[in-house]
Amino acid sequence: MSQTDRPIAAVILAAGKGTRMKSAKHKVLHEIAGRPMIEHLLASVEKLAPERLVAVVGEYREQLASRLGDRVDFAVQEPQLGTGHAVQQAQETLRGFEGDVIVLYGDVPFVRPETMRKMIDRLRSDDAPAAVVLGFEPGDPLRYGRVIAQQGQILKMVEYKDASLEERACALCNSGLLAARSDDLFDLLSRVSDNNAQGEYYLPDIVNIAIRDGRNCAVVTCDGADEVAGINSRAELAAAEAQWQDYKRTDAMEAGVTLRAPGTVVFSWDTELSEDVTVEPNVVFGPGVKVARGATIKAFSHLEGASVGEDCEVGPYARLRPGAVMEAGAKVGNFVEMKKAVLGEGAKANHLTYLGDATVGAGANIGAGTITCNYDGYFKHQTTIGPRAFIGSNSALIAPVSIGADAIVAAGSAVSRDVADGELRMVRADQLVKPGWADRFHDTMRKKKEANRDG
Amino acid sequence: MSQTDRPIAAVILAAGKGTRMKSAKHKVLHEIAGRPMIEHLLASVEKLAPERLVAVVGEYREQLASRLGDRVDFAVQEPQLGTGHAVQQAQETLRGFEGDVIVLYGDVPFVRPETMRKMIDRLRSDDAPAAVVLGFEPGDPLRYGRVIAQQGQILKMVEYKDASLEERACALCNSGLLAARSDDLFDLLSRVSDNNAQGEYYLPDIVNIAIRDGRNCAVVTCDGADEVAGINSRAELAAAEAQWQDYKRTDAMEAGVTLRAPGTVVFSWDTELSEDVTVEPNVVFGPGVKVARGATIKAFSHLEGASVGEDCEVGPYARLRPGAVMEAGAKVGNFVEMKKAVLGEGAKANHLTYLGDATVGAGANIGAGTITCNYDGYFKHQTTIGPRAFIGSNSALIAPVSIGADAIVAAGSAVSRDVADGELRMVRADQLVKPGWADRFHDTMRKKKEANRDG
Amino acid sequence: MSQTDRPIAAVILAAGKGTRMKSAKHKVLHEIAGRPMIEHLLASVEKLAPERLVAVVGEYREQLASRLGDRVDFAVQEPQLGTGHAVQQAQETLRGFEGDVIVLYGDVPFVRPETMRKMIDRLRSDDAPAAVVLGFEPGDPLRYGRVIAQQGQILKMVEYKDASLEERACALCNSGLLAARSDDLFDLLSRVSDNNAQGEYYLPDIVNIAIRDGRNCAVVTCDGADEVAGINSRAELAAAEAQWQDYKRTDAMEAGVTLRAPGTVVFSWDTELSEDVTVEPNVVFGPGVKVARGATIKAFSHLEGASVGEDCEVGPYARLRPGAVMEAGAKVGNFVEMKKAVLGEGAKANHLTYLGDATVGAGANIGAGTITCNYDGYFKHQTTIGPRAFIGSNSALIAPVSIGADAIVAAGSAVSRDVADGELRMVRADQLVKPGWADRFHDTMRKKKEANRDG
Repeated sequence: MSQTDRPIAAVILAAGKGTRMKSAKHKVLHEIAGRPMIEHLLASVEKLAPERLVAVVGEYREQLASRLGDRVDFAVQEPQLGTGHAVQQAQETLRGFEGDVIVLYGDVPFVRPETMRKMIDRLRSDDAPAAVVLGFEPGDPLRYGRVIAQQGQILKMVEYKDASLEERACALCNSGLLAARSDDLFDLLSRVSDNNAQGEYYLPDIVNIAIRDGRNCAVVTCDGADEVAGINSRAELAAAEAQWQDYKRTDAMEAGVTLRAPGTVVFSWDTELSEDVTVEPNVVFGPGVKVARGATIKAFSHLEGASVGEDCEVGPYARLRPGAVMEAGAKVGNFVEMKKAVLGEGAKANHLTYLGDATVGAGANIGAGTITCNYDGYFKHQTTIGPRAFIGSNSALIAPVSIGADAIVAAGSAVSRDVADGELRMVRADQLVKPGWADRFHDTMRKKKEANRDG
Repeated sequence: MSQTDRPIAAVILAAGKGTRMKSAKHKVLHEIAGRPMIEHLLASVEKLAPERLVAVVGEYREQLASRLGDRVDFAVQEPQLGTGHAVQQAQETLRGFEGDVIVLYGDVPFVRPETMRKMIDRLRSDDAPAAVVLGFEPGDPLRYGRVIAQQGQILKMVEYKDASLEERACALCNSGLLAARSDDLFDLLSRVSDNNAQGEYYLPDIVNIAIRDGRNCAVVTCDGADEVAGINSRAELAAAEAQWQDYKRTDAMEAGVTLRAPGTVVFSWDTELSEDVTVEPNVVFGPGVKVARGATIKAFSHLEGASVGEDCEVGPYARLRPGAVMEAGAKVGNFVEMKKAVLGEGAKANHLTYLGDATVGAGANIGAGTITCNYDGYFKHQTTIGPRAFIGSNSALIAPVSIGADAIVAAGSAVSRDVADGELRMVRADQLVKPGWADRFHDTMRKKKEANRDG
Repeated sequence: MSQTDRPIAAVILAAGKGTRMKSAKHKVLHEIAGRPMIEHLLASVEKLAPERLVAVVGEYREQLASRLGDRVDFAVQEPQLGTGHAVQQAQETLRGFEGDVIVLYGDVPFVRPETMRKMIDRLRSDDAPAAVVLGFEPGDPLRYGRVIAQQGQILKMVEYKDASLEERACALCNSGLLAARSDDLFDLLSRVSDNNAQGEYYLPDIVNIAIRDGRNCAVVTCDGADEVAGINSRAELAAAEAQWQDYKRTDAMEAGVTLRAPGTVVFSWDTELSEDVTVEPNVVFGPGVKVARGATIKAFSHLEGASVGEDCEVGPYARLRPGAVMEAGAKVGNFVEMKKAVLGEGAKANHLTYLGDATVGAGANIGAGTITCNYDGYFKHQTTIGPRAFIGSNSALIAPVSIGADAIVAAGSAVSRDVADGELRMVRADQLVKPGWADRFHDTMRKKKEANRDG
């Protein structure tokens, strides 16, 4: 087997539930851009086509199992005796695996696939290092452990608190990420001791052990500290979100999207916007949204799981929920909600409307205040509206119901039976007229109000 | 009486209406975080349990009287002849008071109680200074008056314009805040002259007079300039608001609240959020809101005077007005307004609804477009909806009205009489059907439209 | 003709469609503050009362013609052989014009009229320079061309790539803007060659040619680089928008407007706000809005083409569309849309309402969920509501229709015929009561649901 054919395994450390988050949810399940942080990491590492993915888990592990069970295997670390100990717990789960192992962290979600690839490539290079460490040079090296190295060869890994002043002056810090062949990794780990102040088994110790064995160990670096920033608190979560959003906004504008106030637009990890899309201020994208060329998303709109066709107009104050599909040139206006609903080409629902479980034909006009009554308290039902139909304002369409092509529903109607093509349906009681009644009512009530005031 | 038993009085200078605000409202009544700035100051000084609170007022004083009349006494300064003159006006109001006086400013609202306490403690220390000045070291000392001091003992107070170059090089600035025993304060004030360029009586002069008398005067400091920043314009008001919001956001995140885009969430001075509350982007909290553990406030929501129970979901686009109470697990969705209304455990009002003066039982479902008609033009009336009731979409509930447990109101009904438990109520006219009518209408109208175009 | 009587012409270069914008819209038509960038420039140059305005256009010129055809003349540049060549194309269009020409750029929209005036004044000064260049000193001079000058007299214009190290050290950069007498300009341009790496005719070359002729050429400067920043990408567009908004926010606050969170309020180029207007967070102003003294615009409001009277309250979540007029003390509340509608003094539309093509009298009360049905699918019709009328909740007013003074429309009514003054109109079917029906329905449905679950 050539080196480049060697399979890859990733061990993702996620045993700490994240006490500083103060949450009943595991830290790595907190979301950035609408996706749990560990899934950002998984999406990246999956680009290396790893043969095995093992998450080392502790408290709250049932949450990780239920969310990620079909993508990763689990190893349990209990008690938690350090990063070296954590990786060791994956040995049993990886039994039978022979290849290259990369150690990642569930709370360091934005390591790029290119960076992981660089680590693996270095591990497979001709001088066959025993371990490859990912180093980085932060603006302020703070209390990170240092990587003492010369020309990419590590001389020594040192914890900040054990470092000499000279060593602390070294700017190259240890990100914690490491790659090694599985046999080397577990052999070296078995020799790590917990003979230190914290009584923990530290992963970087394997590098020092390997060096003492006369093996060479290598460091590769990533650009800047952002990629390896860990997330331990909600403030750091918010900062990571902000950074992710800024990258996405810049990408969108470069791709030909107008963002009038970029800082007020919140994207999801998978938002897809085409050229000449305009997004006004204060728009929130949930997962699963695609917007086609020339569409305008007006202020205060909220979209999830929605598809917006060419030249559509959305909002202001439009809420598109999952399953909302707007075909080319359709318009959804203010205070309108769509859910599992298709709005045909050029159809309009401009005001104060709820379209749920509905299909609206091309060119139809849905009047202000129209409600599709899709729920009877037990089941959801479907509404079908034909092309060019006109639904008068303030109508209730009681599903299941079908309105024909070119049909008209009179304003204020509650329609519970199908309306045929070209038919008018009106559900309206007689107009009861009481001349002078209002004047008398006003008189009475004014007196009552005065009486109350005086009383 | 021991020194620590001496009563405290605060004199709050608020005679300037704030010309630069360009407002018909007194400067100190402009709000930060939804509370007039002077009330922030009052809340802080009240932690010292002062025996007396006197505001020195001038123009617009009737505004202050009507807002603060039950919390403070007033002294009028007219004309306004400087800060020393202002404090002197409080002498009559404080007649009979003997103790420690702290001088504060209505437009310097964020002095912390700890800082005020530090001033009072210093005043009561064994060397019994005649006055204690609060100094601070701004990033850029600009044209502030300087406190020339050695080891906390003041040598001289000097206005910027009278200061030598050497004195200007001194970074310790005078915040204007000062504490002194009442007898010292008014005795010294009586000796201050207006023999200066402005023709004003300056408060800091009492320090120089006391020093000339051989008394010692002390300076204590606060951290940074933020605490003693004065607010003189709407831009400074906005800057103070921004800073307050940033502190609050950081506090919330540390307490276990997820803020996806912290900069877009606006809090009130009294907002209370529990652990594992999630607040999406673009949410505004008015005064009086409490949100319990696990609740989610979605984007574009606006809450005031509302109580949100555990695991509730609010929004997007939900407006909770004063008296809105959501019990555990209740949901309020898009374009829904609640006012003086209780939504029982697990009850839902998901779309386009107004619930005013209403009680909704547990597990009830309020359909889209439901309106509680609570107002007859003169009086407000109550709507009561029983547990598990189902209100069909587009219904109008004409209060006073009561809907029973498990009752059903058919979609589109205007209900003006009570509905019993387990009863169906439907208010709907016959469906009038006119086959082909719509087709004929379209023909006629198209011709008319063309005629108009040609005409 | 004295120098100051000489007419002015402006040549605006706009031949590049702006490839980096990735847009089917010409770059200079992209909007800042709701107005195409070139119209910002036109508004400024028009303050100089120019006799002629010529835009030099290339691709997408039909877009410019249709938008600006009545304000400027056009000259076509095809192919595009440099800035000198571009200006030359205007010669034919300017035939017969004799006076001062200023060369501007459609994508440099924020040059102030004062700066243009300064260039013209310098051109007209006694030493009669052959050309006046606008220079600027950016924070980082990057790869801008340099203006080598002594005491305002240009020694040499030099492209960055041709500049010596010494010349590059010069901080005075060429903005590209230039003024010259028409005869000088076109004479010099005819002598510019394309003998350079790009094979282009450069406008600044005319300065070097004039200097070689022994003529003097002058440089004037503007403050900072903002004024002459070019906009070539959507990111630069967003940056220009952000800067414009910041200036506008500062101006508004100085004029006595309260902006609680200035960074969340988006203005239009022509927004007019009076003293003591309060704008809450997250408000968007489209073009054509005036707000009178004492009005409050609450959060999440969106206004275009609207007039808001004294002490009005708008929002939260109010949408005022073009033609919305609120008279003094009127209120528009949450989820309410107005379009071509007048709301009389003190009238209220507080919730979930659409007022389109309507006139509402003073003191009228529009209930929650009221819809003016203004559209029949072909034409728009008018609704007139008298003073003090009371429109019950969830009513549909089917236009054309008129509701009299003091009249009452009962809740849930669809009103298609006029209501007289003081009259009550109710359109409501009988209340159909089915005791126990709901209980039986619940039984049946629960069984059905269970069957589905088991099945």
